[in-house]
Amino acid sequence: MNGSTTHNTHLPSNAPSSTDCWLLRKLYELVGRPSIGLQLWDGYFVGDDSSGIVICFHDRGALYRSLYKPTYTFGVLYTEERLSVAGDLVTALEKIYQALTDIEARGGAAAQIGRKIAARRPRRNSLDRSRENIHAHYDLGNDFYKLWLDREHTQYTCAYFTKPELTLEQAQSAKLELVCRKLALKPGDSVVEAGGGWGGLARYLAKNYGVRVASYNISASQVAYARERAREEGLQDQIEYIEDDFRNIRGSFDVFVSVGMLEHIGPGNFAATGATIDTCLKDDGRGFIHTIGQISPRPLNEWIERHIFPGAAPPSLEQMMTIFEPHGFVVSDVENLRPHYALTLRHWLRRFDEHADEIEQMFDPEFIRAWRIYLSGSAAAFSKGSLQLFQVLFQRPGCQDIPATRDRLFDPPLLAPTLSSS
Amino acid sequence: MNGSTTHNTHLPSNAPSSTDCWLLRKLYELVGRPSIGLQLWDGYFVGDDSSGIVICFHDRGALYRSLYKPTYTFGVLYTEERLSVAGDLVTALEKIYQALTDIEARGGAAAQIGRKIAARRPRRNSLDRSRENIHAHYDLGNDFYKLWLDREHTQYTCAYFTKPELTLEQAQSAKLELVCRKLALKPGDSVVEAGGGWGGLARYLAKNYGVRVASYNISASQVAYARERAREEGLQDQIEYIEDDFRNIRGSFDVFVSVGMLEHIGPGNFAATGATIDTCLKDDGRGFIHTIGQISPRPLNEWIERHIFPGAAPPSLEQMMTIFEPHGFVVSDVENLRPHYALTLRHWLRRFDEHADEIEQMFDPEFIRAWRIYLSGSAAAFSKGSLQLFQVLFQRPGCQDIPATRDRLFDPPLLAPTLSSS
Repeated sequence: MNGSTTHNTHLPSNAPSSTDCWLLRKLYELVGRPSIGLQLWDGYFVGDDSSGIVICFHDRGALYRSLYKPTYTFGVLYTEERLSVAGDLVTALEKIYQALTDIEARGGAAAQIGRKIAARRPRRNSLDRSRENIHAHYDLGNDFYKLWLDREHTQYTCAYFTKPELTLEQAQSAKLELVCRKLALKPGDSVVEAGGGWGGLARYLAKNYGVRVASYNISASQVAYARERAREEGLQDQIEYIEDDFRNIRGSFDVFVSVGMLEHIGPGNFAATGATIDTCLKDDGRGFIHTIGQISPRPLNEWIERHIFPGAAPPSLEQMMTIFEPHGFVVSDVENLRPHYALTLRHWLRRFDEHADEIEQMFDPEFIRAWRIYLSGSAAAFSKGSLQLFQVLFQRPGCQDIPATRDRLFDPPLLAPTLSSS
Repeated sequence: MNGSTTHNTHLPSNAPSSTDCWLLRKLYELVGRPSIGLQLWDGYFVGDDSSGIVICFHDRGALYRSLYKPTYTFGVLYTEERLSVAGDLVTALEKIYQALTDIEARGGAAAQIGRKIAARRPRRNSLDRSRENIHAHYDLGNDFYKLWLDREHTQYTCAYFTKPELTLEQAQSAKLELVCRKLALKPGDSVVEAGGGWGGLARYLAKNYGVRVASYNISASQVAYARERAREEGLQDQIEYIEDDFRNIRGSFDVFVSVGMLEHIGPGNFAATGATIDTCLKDDGRGFIHTIGQISPRPLNEWIERHIFPGAAPPSLEQMMTIFEPHGFVVSDVENLRPHYALTLRHWLRRFDEHADEIEQMFDPEFIRAWRIYLSGSAAAFSKGSLQLFQVLFQRPGCQDIPATRDRLFDPPLLAPTLSSS
């Protein structure tokens, strides 16, 4: 089904030239001939219509800009409503990611062009810049996030689906429990947390494992929310929420934990990250980092990095190891939760759409479209692209707390029966 | 208990000078003041006698050589019987490794000296050189290895102790089963094995999982043994043992597996290793590498590398990632079995000692002492030194065979009841 024109009365009358049609065919080649259709504003069609998914360019400029940096421009044009997608948005993006992954797997000139298109530097993360970058995203308003994140723990990180049919609430509880079990926490442990979000992990640790937590975060609105919740639940004596960069951690702890912060730091700051952990971890201490990662060193999708997560730069495992190896930390366990994040994002997206009316009261339509393409694109990148979710457990060589086998992660089942039946 | 002389009638009459005594004290400092004693041939004693462990230098030359490269010279002098150890040899070496690890953790000049002492290049592993290096170790005679390895699977790699009290046979069965479950093998899978040893893994795969295996190995005597065992067990149609370097693998497979080979290759050959895997693995394939590793990039103990495992160079995880990331392999799971190898080596050592009489019929006393210090030093290096055991599971992005959770590793229990009760 290549190069045919179908009748479409809703498109503008500015008819495409033969060059426009040729360029659409070139674009289709450039992104690896995904099993979807591409269409011009008059209905001129290229590609595969079997899936029912069609990306339509609404004007000539939208087409031309797509040829320059397709993966960046898609987000821009979708947000500006100069491009629309018929069919499921996540599936559409999965098919594009699949095609791009296949190009890379085949190697050669096409793969080089692909990598060149993607190559660029993310924003640097000095202490001040980090604060700006994080403010841009995490201070959008707690009310906004509470509409579509899980209701109990307000986790804006990958959940863990012991079974695919779990609710989001169950899967986030399972994730928190998994983190605790990996760390083999015991009552009285002192824990320092880097990037505490809305405080859900610290509350879970304090409540269920009887540990003390010092939790660092540079998002003012998250810290305010976390403090209030801790007071409400009577945990204020066990948890101290500190509004500061984790690189300013002071003190000495049994356990270092960080869930969903490392991806905001960038490999350029990993030497400092390792040094911070080395300074604050006791001689027999242990630690855990949960982060979005990449299959190999490469920047995040440029549109996401510029418009959604300024400064973000998910690392490859090789890059992550530069945190641990210079300080002689033993890496005990690495788990890749890639498929779990694809599922988590689909949950978020569904709730986001379910609350569209309320979100429209908070933000303009462009913001909502940007957010929808961000959540959809991320779901697709985890299922078919290069995004990974790494959980890395590490320890000082002298640490005796982590058992030699992984049985503790499964027995008893991660989800207590009361949760499973909720 | 520093610098005292005790009476010992068994030592030579060539009395140590004050310089000798001063050097012994310096040596004790250099290795980080371990909680053991050091003694000269006349009984002059330095250190800590509370553990009952004393290393005795039998002549002046032994003392002087120890000062130059203590970790190398220890093996040489023990083998030549110019140094002896009172008390448990593994514990003695653990205490030295612990002290050296502590020096490194403290950093500074002492750590730099330590690293400098250790810095050197292992032998290169061209295809021809690999064959020589492997011949030197693995062709010592199957009868020798059969005396002290597990009786069922002849595994000369780390076992997996679901419980510490398992027999060596049970723990090696559990290891083989763990490998299969990590790979989520299914009947009909085509498997290529790099470095097949005496063929135990290939037999286990063929017998218990109904897969076909092409197993590469450059040790002639191992291949001959493996072929005979496969014929005896009627597996010759499922397993092809190929006497060739794995870098010459031809064909296309669902699964790549390698247990205990990567440590012999060296990081300089990892680019070629990744390229070989990329060539022989199907588009939806998966793979598994089990290897001795290091906490951070550093050479193997020089004595072990020169006298026991020529060319060996266990990698750090960062170095291992250079196999996977350039080819876009997704790393799904990394487990560090470090404590399991310490336990495995203690089993081997005990059996080695139990069969000392038979081994003395095969080799000269120097070989036996060398082997004993090698097994003991390795046990100590896994429990207190920098050696690690990494199991890395990886997959093509398009692979659908590896489940999203790890339940399969534990349920049903790794050891079938019949094995547990044996």
